[in-house]
Amino acid sequence: MLKLNLVGIGPPLKIKGFAGSNMLLIKGEDNVMKPLGRHVLAEIYGCEFDILNDIKKVETIMVNAALEAGAEVREFVFHKFSPQGVSGVVVISESHLAIHTWPELGYAAVDVFTCGEKVDPWDACNYLTECFCATHMAAKETERGIIPAGVVPPVAVNQ
Amino acid sequence: MLKLNLVGIGPPLKIKGFAGSNMLLIKGEDNVMKPLGRHVLAEIYGCEFDILNDIKKVETIMVNAALEAGAEVREFVFHKFSPQGVSGVVVISESHLAIHTWPELGYAAVDVFTCGEKVDPWDACNYLTECFCATHMAAKETERGIIPAGVVPPVAVNQ
Repeated sequence: MLKLNLVGIGPPLKIKGFAGSNMLLIKGEDNVMKPLGRHVLAEIYGCEFDILNDIKKVETIMVNAALEAGAEVREFVFHKFSPQGVSGVVVISESHLAIHTWPELGYAAVDVFTCGEKVDPWDACNYLTECFCATHMAAKETERGIIPAGVVPPVAVNQ
Repeated sequence: MLKLNLVGIGPPLKIKGFAGSNMLLIKGEDNVMKPLGRHVLAEIYGCEFDILNDIKKVETIMVNAALEAGAEVREFVFHKFSPQGVSGVVVISESHLAIHTWPELGYAAVDVFTCGEKVDPWDACNYLTECFCATHMAAKETERGIIPAGVVPPVAVNQ
């Protein structure tokens, strides 16, 4: 039976059940702790029904949001629900953009996960907010991939 | 047609550019504030390299995680990076599961977004943790889609 330690995260990373001496984190050349990525969860309100309910429009806007943020698009897939709503994801070299729309509420749930310095997830969120003719956007960013040294294969640790 | 009651006030949602007095939230028939969905961001550590680096294994495990959680799979797409790593997403009727793997770090960044009462995103996260032979999982849940009344089209309001 698998034994797991279930721990909570938050900025900065809090690890319960880990010995403090094991809490070395992966550091870059400048000796600063480096999360692997940034994940923005965005609530986009007051959007136009006819945009959020059109799979082709949503798909085009999402792909363009990735490009607008400087990402490299690898794959994308979208699905239209009945009677309304679209879900879809754009996989990028730097991670992904995902969306779920509730046209009847004028609401889109978006998340944008990016790795590296080149792509800013907020650029994508702001672009989507504009393209959906939204009145409001509320978002928060979470750091992803702050890896405790104790669980990293030794060869991967840069100390 | 979705029937919503708009009642009540308040936090915890932070809306930029919103007056506090407009912070009415959508409530269900039991008069409890109802987010549209739950979004779990999971950091899965200490995974097996050979699983995280195999696109077919990752794809199968992700689709099965969706099914294990009781979701209905609609679409999926996965991408293999060189020299290592897999990214992919399973679109479900209830939203999505996404993954990005760093096999060399034994790390998978997962997020599971579910709507409705039927699917529990934590079931999928626990299933993935087990299938990746992970040693640790750290995760947090965010409520999605708590919609301020001021931005909901009147046609959707049932008062």
